[in-house]
Amino acid sequence: MAKVLTSRQENYSQWYNDLIVKAEMAENSAVRGCMVIKPYGYSLWENMQRILDGMFKQTGHVNAYFPLFIPKSFFSREASHVEGFAKECAVVTHYRLKTDATGKGIVVDEDAKLEEELIVRPTSETIIWNTYKNWIQSYRDLPILCNQWANVVRWEMRTRLFLRTAEFLWQEGHTAHESAEEALQETEKMINVYADFVEKYMAIPVIKGRKSANERFAGAIDTYCIEALMQDGKALQAGTSHFLGQNFAKAFDVKFLNKENKLDYVWATSWGVSTRLIGALVMSHSDDNGLVLPPKIAPLQVVIVPIYRDKEGLEKVSKVAVELKTRLEQLNISVKYDDRDSLRSGEKFNIYELKGVPVRITIGPRDLEQNQVEICRRDTLEKSNMHIQDVAEAMPRLLEDIQESIFQKAKKFRDDHIIKADTWEEFEKAIENGGFVSAHWDGTTETEVAIKEKTKATIRCIPFNNPQEEGKCILTGKPSKERVLFAKAY
Amino acid sequence: MAKVLTSRQENYSQWYNDLIVKAEMAENSAVRGCMVIKPYGYSLWENMQRILDGMFKQTGHVNAYFPLFIPKSFFSREASHVEGFAKECAVVTHYRLKTDATGKGIVVDEDAKLEEELIVRPTSETIIWNTYKNWIQSYRDLPILCNQWANVVRWEMRTRLFLRTAEFLWQEGHTAHESAEEALQETEKMINVYADFVEKYMAIPVIKGRKSANERFAGAIDTYCIEALMQDGKALQAGTSHFLGQNFAKAFDVKFLNKENKLDYVWATSWGVSTRLIGALVMSHSDDNGLVLPPKIAPLQVVIVPIYRDKEGLEKVSKVAVELKTRLEQLNISVKYDDRDSLRSGEKFNIYELKGVPVRITIGPRDLEQNQVEICRRDTLEKSNMHIQDVAEAMPRLLEDIQESIFQKAKKFRDDHIIKADTWEEFEKAIENGGFVSAHWDGTTETEVAIKEKTKATIRCIPFNNPQEEGKCILTGKPSKERVLFAKAY
Repeated sequence: MAKVLTSRQENYSQWYNDLIVKAEMAENSAVRGCMVIKPYGYSLWENMQRILDGMFKQTGHVNAYFPLFIPKSFFSREASHVEGFAKECAVVTHYRLKTDATGKGIVVDEDAKLEEELIVRPTSETIIWNTYKNWIQSYRDLPILCNQWANVVRWEMRTRLFLRTAEFLWQEGHTAHESAEEALQETEKMINVYADFVEKYMAIPVIKGRKSANERFAGAIDTYCIEALMQDGKALQAGTSHFLGQNFAKAFDVKFLNKENKLDYVWATSWGVSTRLIGALVMSHSDDNGLVLPPKIAPLQVVIVPIYRDKEGLEKVSKVAVELKTRLEQLNISVKYDDRDSLRSGEKFNIYELKGVPVRITIGPRDLEQNQVEICRRDTLEKSNMHIQDVAEAMPRLLEDIQESIFQKAKKFRDDHIIKADTWEEFEKAIENGGFVSAHWDGTTETEVAIKEKTKATIRCIPFNNPQEEGKCILTGKPSKERVLFAKAY
Repeated sequence: MAKVLTSRQENYSQWYNDLIVKAEMAENSAVRGCMVIKPYGYSLWENMQRILDGMFKQTGHVNAYFPLFIPKSFFSREASHVEGFAKECAVVTHYRLKTDATGKGIVVDEDAKLEEELIVRPTSETIIWNTYKNWIQSYRDLPILCNQWANVVRWEMRTRLFLRTAEFLWQEGHTAHESAEEALQETEKMINVYADFVEKYMAIPVIKGRKSANERFAGAIDTYCIEALMQDGKALQAGTSHFLGQNFAKAFDVKFLNKENKLDYVWATSWGVSTRLIGALVMSHSDDNGLVLPPKIAPLQVVIVPIYRDKEGLEKVSKVAVELKTRLEQLNISVKYDDRDSLRSGEKFNIYELKGVPVRITIGPRDLEQNQVEICRRDTLEKSNMHIQDVAEAMPRLLEDIQESIFQKAKKFRDDHIIKADTWEEFEKAIENGGFVSAHWDGTTETEVAIKEKTKATIRCIPFNNPQEEGKCILTGKPSKERVLFAKAY
């Protein structure tokens, strides 16, 4: 088999890009930093959306839709928010094009300049809190539990498919509450929803925790996150949930009459995950042959490939294959029978390995004689034979096994790569080797920034329920009461 | 009951706007021409999306996602396309903001000017055909049957909630084919899908036909459409499907090796429906009390309202109500039991009438004594009593009856408002009265434009399977072989 991918060993970054493109997940577009999500990649996103959306609704949330554009002045209202986003904003300044003087080209019509520039949303706190102002008068109007599925734009200088693109797709939840406690509960509830989704469906183990002040969302009081570890030892932030306090309510003057009949500012949270998760998925499980997709979100769970010499042979195999396909579909398993005559079976094997289809079933003339099929698991590439009559009954269990096994493999890798460091030398070496490094830190942004400058490592999170222990900051030697997790990150 | 809406008689346009806002479907945002789609309106859109998306997949289409931004130069490539859209484009010219000289405000950073301006997509033919160029080499790569769910921006000067907004949500299908015949079949297939969806689910009768040259999509060879009639006698274009010929393939140099091993340009279609359909829905069925929603797409199909004097009374009613709710939900009927104590039952009645919930069930102490409930249909406002035990069994049929009856009412109205006109006087009068006017036309754009200037009426469509008959153009008296449908339109 000709290798279509650069190996991970050789060049991890190239392997990733090759894989995304060759598995037909996405590609770069003609617009700098913007990607085209191809049908295979998009159907993965649709599966993720459907499951997440169900989880949001189960926890009492509803969907809505807010404008793509945000008036420039809205940004200035929350000081740290504008500072966080101003440097990467796409700005709309005009609303018309016209034919140029030569009559051949088109140019921006300077007569159609906007009085106030509009920002293409990088996130929607400002426009949403400006809207909530009109929705909230009293505690009876609370809580508001809205989510939106949308595209956002952040003008990143260095982009990578799925991981960091100028435009990306995401969901952003924006909730409004009558008390700090309730908002904090919501913040925590949603980071738990994200962790459940990412672990149970995407089979990616995550560590839940809070961000240090320096890594917080621009405008948040507290940011909770889930952090995952990629195969190259770099961490990836897979989702965040922010306790925004009363910051946006104050910036947009959103007050409510509370149960004590007093005016107070409303409490807020926001939380989001994005198409970036697809990058995390690829980098968590895939191998040098291609994608490895967890069955619960794979666009296609089972592929059946016929082996045959002639038309008559194909007909015999097809009869059995189509029956099997029907039986599997009755169990809500997604199945494709690929009987294309334009490709050899070996080529088909390569394609479905590249695309990460969890189970391949091969049926050939000899199998028919023995009333069996060959089953190949994508995650381990193990092959086994199975009696045709047993396949349908065995499949749900096999898919569950694959799901669990992908998760356990990733979890073992992650657990093996959480290293304690107690001296600066150990720390530097551990960071260099990759993985999470658990170390004491004196709690100051100054030290955090200094460590980042020296090692490129950032504090990924302060884990929830973190054991308290006496220790000394890895860099300054100042006293510390708990370890935090450092890593180089995407 | 205090009227919350302006009546249709009094001011149709005001009635529409009041209704959209008071039923909590949508509202205007702080950004000129952009709306906020509120949870109730959005859940209607979600129902529409889910059904349409299923129909697209059933007909072999897959979803993908293409960039929000389109390089300005792409527009110039297809001459009539740019002419159609240049005057209403939001243009991104910069990619960064910065703090101003005073340190207090933020301004556009002039150092971050884009080399080439980006247009926020008003429709995606250009960026998609630029992408397809890399996907298509041979007939084996065809057909491509992609759809995308997305937001688009057209800088309309006069906007109305749902009907005409600067930003709106839609789906746009873009397909690529090896022959004109196949592309034409696709164009027709999709206008039929739209007609089925709009008639069967939204209960809006439509007329299928083709547009005149003057009303065609900018860049199309032929535009098929479905046209609906609103209660005020104005027509509304509810969906379009375009045969684009080889226009975009030529503009973006997309050639393929055909079965005869010759290079040829690829054939294209595009088709779309948008949140505008929600406007059509409201204006087709609703009345002076509020929305009337067809059960098949209503966010909520049944509401149960308890009547009670005291806590004990409520408990008795609740027991029965909750049981009934469960039984209805087992039949996949969406039900809400509104036992809020903060509102009187009359207030609840008004709210659900305003929101167009198809069936209201009232349960009070006297009902319990007689083992019955009161059922009120939203479409006719008819009330009847029913034995509690019979409700669940009767409900699916009742919902179907309501669905059908809403459609038939709209169809009768539409059919009663298709008037033949054979003289200019008849024509002017008929247009003034509202509705579709079926009249002969000499087939020229000149005449079409002249008629529009005199009456504001446009040719809505040349119906499919239009009877051929000799006649004279209503304006010029020149010979004509068929009648076409004129109307004033949204």
